[in-house]
Amino acid sequence: MASQDKNKATWIWYPGDFEIRLHEKMSAKRTARGVAYPAYWQLDRHYSNIKFRYAYELEQEEEITIEAEGVFSLYLDGKDNYRTNRSSITLPAGRHEIMVSVFNDTEMPALYVAGHSIQSDSSWEVTSYQNDWLPAGFWKFDAPENRPSAFRLAVTPQEPVSVMDQEGHPLLDFGKETFGYLRFHNLSGNGSVNVYFGESITEALSPDECVTLDAFEAEEARRLQEDGVFTLEEPKAFRYAWIHADPGVTWEHVSMLYEYVPVQYRSSFDCSDPKLNDIYTMSLYTLHLNTREFFLDGIKRDRWVWSGDAYQAFLMNYYSFFDLDVTRRTLVALRGKDPLAMHLNTIVDYSLYWFISLYDYYLYTGDFTFIRQNYDRAVTLMEFCLNQRNEEGFIEGRPQDWVFVDWADLTNTGAVSTLQILLARSLEAMGAFSDLIGDKKAASTYGRLAAELKEKTMALFWDNERGGLLHHRVDGETKPILTKHANMFAMTYGYLSEVQRSSVIRQVMLNPEVPQIRTPYMRFHELAVLCDSGEHDFVRKEMLSYWGGMMDLGATSFWEEYDPSLADDEHYGMYGMPFGKSLCHAWGAGPIYLIGKYYLGITPASPGYETYRIRPNLGGLQHMQGTVPIGEGQVTVKMDLSSIRVESTNGSGLLTFASSSLPECPDAEVRAMGNNIYEITVEAGKLYRITYEA
Amino acid sequence: MASQDKNKATWIWYPGDFEIRLHEKMSAKRTARGVAYPAYWQLDRHYSNIKFRYAYELEQEEEITIEAEGVFSLYLDGKDNYRTNRSSITLPAGRHEIMVSVFNDTEMPALYVAGHSIQSDSSWEVTSYQNDWLPAGFWKFDAPENRPSAFRLAVTPQEPVSVMDQEGHPLLDFGKETFGYLRFHNLSGNGSVNVYFGESITEALSPDECVTLDAFEAEEARRLQEDGVFTLEEPKAFRYAWIHADPGVTWEHVSMLYEYVPVQYRSSFDCSDPKLNDIYTMSLYTLHLNTREFFLDGIKRDRWVWSGDAYQAFLMNYYSFFDLDVTRRTLVALRGKDPLAMHLNTIVDYSLYWFISLYDYYLYTGDFTFIRQNYDRAVTLMEFCLNQRNEEGFIEGRPQDWVFVDWADLTNTGAVSTLQILLARSLEAMGAFSDLIGDKKAASTYGRLAAELKEKTMALFWDNERGGLLHHRVDGETKPILTKHANMFAMTYGYLSEVQRSSVIRQVMLNPEVPQIRTPYMRFHELAVLCDSGEHDFVRKEMLSYWGGMMDLGATSFWEEYDPSLADDEHYGMYGMPFGKSLCHAWGAGPIYLIGKYYLGITPASPGYETYRIRPNLGGLQHMQGTVPIGEGQVTVKMDLSSIRVESTNGSGLLTFASSSLPECPDAEVRAMGNNIYEITVEAGKLYRITYEA
Repeated sequence: MASQDKNKATWIWYPGDFEIRLHEKMSAKRTARGVAYPAYWQLDRHYSNIKFRYAYELEQEEEITIEAEGVFSLYLDGKDNYRTNRSSITLPAGRHEIMVSVFNDTEMPALYVAGHSIQSDSSWEVTSYQNDWLPAGFWKFDAPENRPSAFRLAVTPQEPVSVMDQEGHPLLDFGKETFGYLRFHNLSGNGSVNVYFGESITEALSPDECVTLDAFEAEEARRLQEDGVFTLEEPKAFRYAWIHADPGVTWEHVSMLYEYVPVQYRSSFDCSDPKLNDIYTMSLYTLHLNTREFFLDGIKRDRWVWSGDAYQAFLMNYYSFFDLDVTRRTLVALRGKDPLAMHLNTIVDYSLYWFISLYDYYLYTGDFTFIRQNYDRAVTLMEFCLNQRNEEGFIEGRPQDWVFVDWADLTNTGAVSTLQILLARSLEAMGAFSDLIGDKKAASTYGRLAAELKEKTMALFWDNERGGLLHHRVDGETKPILTKHANMFAMTYGYLSEVQRSSVIRQVMLNPEVPQIRTPYMRFHELAVLCDSGEHDFVRKEMLSYWGGMMDLGATSFWEEYDPSLADDEHYGMYGMPFGKSLCHAWGAGPIYLIGKYYLGITPASPGYETYRIRPNLGGLQHMQGTVPIGEGQVTVKMDLSSIRVESTNGSGLLTFASSSLPECPDAEVRAMGNNIYEITVEAGKLYRITYEA
Repeated sequence: MASQDKNKATWIWYPGDFEIRLHEKMSAKRTARGVAYPAYWQLDRHYSNIKFRYAYELEQEEEITIEAEGVFSLYLDGKDNYRTNRSSITLPAGRHEIMVSVFNDTEMPALYVAGHSIQSDSSWEVTSYQNDWLPAGFWKFDAPENRPSAFRLAVTPQEPVSVMDQEGHPLLDFGKETFGYLRFHNLSGNGSVNVYFGESITEALSPDECVTLDAFEAEEARRLQEDGVFTLEEPKAFRYAWIHADPGVTWEHVSMLYEYVPVQYRSSFDCSDPKLNDIYTMSLYTLHLNTREFFLDGIKRDRWVWSGDAYQAFLMNYYSFFDLDVTRRTLVALRGKDPLAMHLNTIVDYSLYWFISLYDYYLYTGDFTFIRQNYDRAVTLMEFCLNQRNEEGFIEGRPQDWVFVDWADLTNTGAVSTLQILLARSLEAMGAFSDLIGDKKAASTYGRLAAELKEKTMALFWDNERGGLLHHRVDGETKPILTKHANMFAMTYGYLSEVQRSSVIRQVMLNPEVPQIRTPYMRFHELAVLCDSGEHDFVRKEMLSYWGGMMDLGATSFWEEYDPSLADDEHYGMYGMPFGKSLCHAWGAGPIYLIGKYYLGITPASPGYETYRIRPNLGGLQHMQGTVPIGEGQVTVKMDLSSIRVESTNGSGLLTFASSSLPECPDAEVRAMGNNIYEITVEAGKLYRITYEA
């Protein structure tokens, strides 16, 4: 079977163009109250004109069949005036080179060639006629009829849990946040049908203000129905749907087609606190809903691919589905093509997150091939970023740029310290990539730039008295404004000394005088940093109050923003719209990451989890058990106040834990590291049982 | 009427994208024996995601209608969550800003807005979301139903002049080279029909080797016919068509739809030599056939837009149709978008011709707006070219580049002198553009670079003994190879001293030892240079023998290449194909330019023909009369051995002529310039009658 798979033909294309074409389509899917709202950045496009090549040697002639998305022509050995477009030809024996040009100005040009020994796959090369023969791109399209342009997510039927009458119109409740296509079964009568969707019941019951809606004519709908079912053309995010039909229009019932990526739930978590378990489960669901063609920001409103949002979704994904397809698609789509006139999503920080995300991808997967595929575009993106350093060497937003940092009352003029930290980390990532690629000179340059920037940032932004990095520096003067953001990132990336770390925790992170963080987006980083400093107990309580707070308000998935001080329906407003807030936002799913990384405590110590660390921490829980995927395999941890069990399937781990008395382990040597810290080396395929004292 | 036109709404789009989208389509139209043969360079694409804006002030509300190619949404005053896609809305009175986003990933997004006072036109701005608010592009699409994506050239029916039986199959002869869609009237029966096209009769009668062919099934064709006529989907270039049908398939007759740009024939030429008159007429027809969506190289084979070919077509066009639409479309399409990885058409010299063509455009039209629209892309193309200078500062081809110069036995390694001359001229053009734009610093840089390059080229390529510029320089050593090419361009652009010019004419251009030029492409430049040196009599004879030679062989349009030494059907071969040669090639139409510029003698002396020179020269003819367009107007010259008549409609001209006795003119003062040369200032709207002695 393995050898057959190896010889299996796949559709091939210009690398990256599948993602870029799909991204172009998806970025135009957003609607605002039924009206198109395409992304407000430049959308890159697939190359319409490409050419494949493949050199072969055959002992005897062989028949191949050829399929293309687009207009193709095939010729041999450079004889480009003598081409064929027949779907089946016989290749002559001997050494020859096949060339196939494919043109498609609607969908991405793609090719599928199948013969006994000659099959289209990534050993074919492709050019966009820019002196760029590259290994062809491919994915899982391995049959002629399984065409890349027809790629769709999976769907499965769902039924409403209740249908209530509201002012004479049915209000459907699907029980929890969902995404997909509403379906009408056995429509009859003539007239208009209007559907008002709501992530909250209030939204669905507000026809004049709900963010998504749809409408159709029953007569037209019947023409379009299949097997008595009319499915709305565009999917929507909702829990509730309120349906207003003209008198005389009736139907048997309404259901929906849930649309999703069939990911595997490869992580698990179960602990002594049922509420935390629910938070974990709801986080997984929130992330899953946003794990689609790409990692989206939120499923109701933008449905766009935002680099800063994706940065977090990637990390959550490593601690849950470990779905690398959607990760790679997202990274490729975000970067797009050259030239760059604007930053990713128009936001300077979002360009920088892309480098860090790519580095994380390498750390969690060890997949150097993907780094190599994206290296050239990483280099040009970094050139673009470095070009906007000011005289002091700090990166600044240009007038046309958005320096975001966070939804908060921030003044991001001049050189913002957060951007310097992100750029330093990005330069380190580029240094690592260059090193992997084998470009020592580039690696050394990036390394030097990173070191210089870190040093300068610490020198000019650090305020000894206030114990942290100040927010920004304008015209050579650092302003006396203290925010948490740069401090969090500097801690995360290990840019602070022990003294600085402790000062940041005490004087910044836990200081009520410093403006509080309100978005789950930055809470993600904030709470990670607190865990990094051993504040697990505090973070657990924060999770229970913040994410638990949303649940108490009836959330079935986590929100874009949460302010406990708001009353009732005020929670749903944002961007000047009463229901503008997304109630299913990827960045709301942070507990997946916090729990997997800091409670179960699994982190890669070398790329692809060849080695890893296991530092379980109950953080105030009585007991917990759970699993974290580490590439193909997984690590399972079970812990209570007196025992720890660890088991892994791959690589080699280093288990670290605290115990107030000397722990015992019949399965391995326990090494005392001082300060009540103990270590055990964990080999794959063995169960480790430790008795300790919390 | 004028004010109504001014207020007429037009379709608008992102500037340049109409041309770029059309170019993408046309570049994939070539077929080789029925099989697609798309251009082998990267094809740029239109932006799919754009946004228009327009600020207005209205005293009272106004209803507008909105049409879009693509999905649009309109909102006012930045309220982007509250959009409409209705085709008719009422704009509120007062000061407001309209924004309209349009997304279209198939055809170019375009917008049409019509109200009483608010109309879409070039006063609207558009962005591709790259910090690039630009005046919207537009052309002549001024009705809602007249959509840019539906743009087609004009068509008109043509009938064959004869139908002969050849081996039992009808052979149609349309009398001369033509281009368009073959049509079958009243088809009946079932079976296949194969059509073999030929620019020559031999080609049409060679089903196995003819370059273009077509085929259809009669049954399917009948389904597609309109009013009893089935029209082939793809147009072809041909004079002959040989039709093989299965027994039982019959038709009433076959005609064609000639497809063309309805240009005005604004020039004329009539002289004492009927053969030269015929050459002029056939040149006009050859150019017209190649004047299409863009200036093509040839209509049978490539049907691509080649910059070096277009450079000459532009010049011919200024002396005939003066069609600026096709000129602008061609210049925009050729340049495409950034980034540049390869040269225009992959050819280094073809990038350089683009600058020179753009300069010529300015010189002949005075249209600064177009220069400004293209300036940024000119700057980046020049950067790209300058980046590949060698250590000595000479431009060289990279391994992936094609250095063409000419179809000839040339070795174009190292620094080729022709490229240096073209680069110097391009730098001068950039200097002029920068100066117009008002960027004095850039103008001075380009000017300095041009001067340095010219000086270095003359110093290192000029061979005093051989009296010309040598062909190339490899690894710091100028090779002892003398060709005409660089010398021609250096003369044309005025880079030679009087002594050098005379040496080049004598020792290079008229020296039979120097390899002869065989393509009309370089004959164009060669003969122009000889005219520049007063060799009109020689050039007239060359036209008669070279272009006349093609006519003697039965040409009805002029060819890609002509070698009088070949026998019979060998004339039709090229590129390893027996009928590979194009028999209707734009660069074959050079006599238009030679006659208009050097015999009728009209050239602009300042941009847009505000002033011009008239230097008529009979060049051995007994008499001649003719007209040359000068922008909106024209200059008419009539001359024989003893009289000259000149009349112009615009601007101010300087008539220069030679006379062996003192000429007389009752209409103006005649100024003697010495050496039997006389000048008269010609004002618009007046007839000048001169008596002189040839």
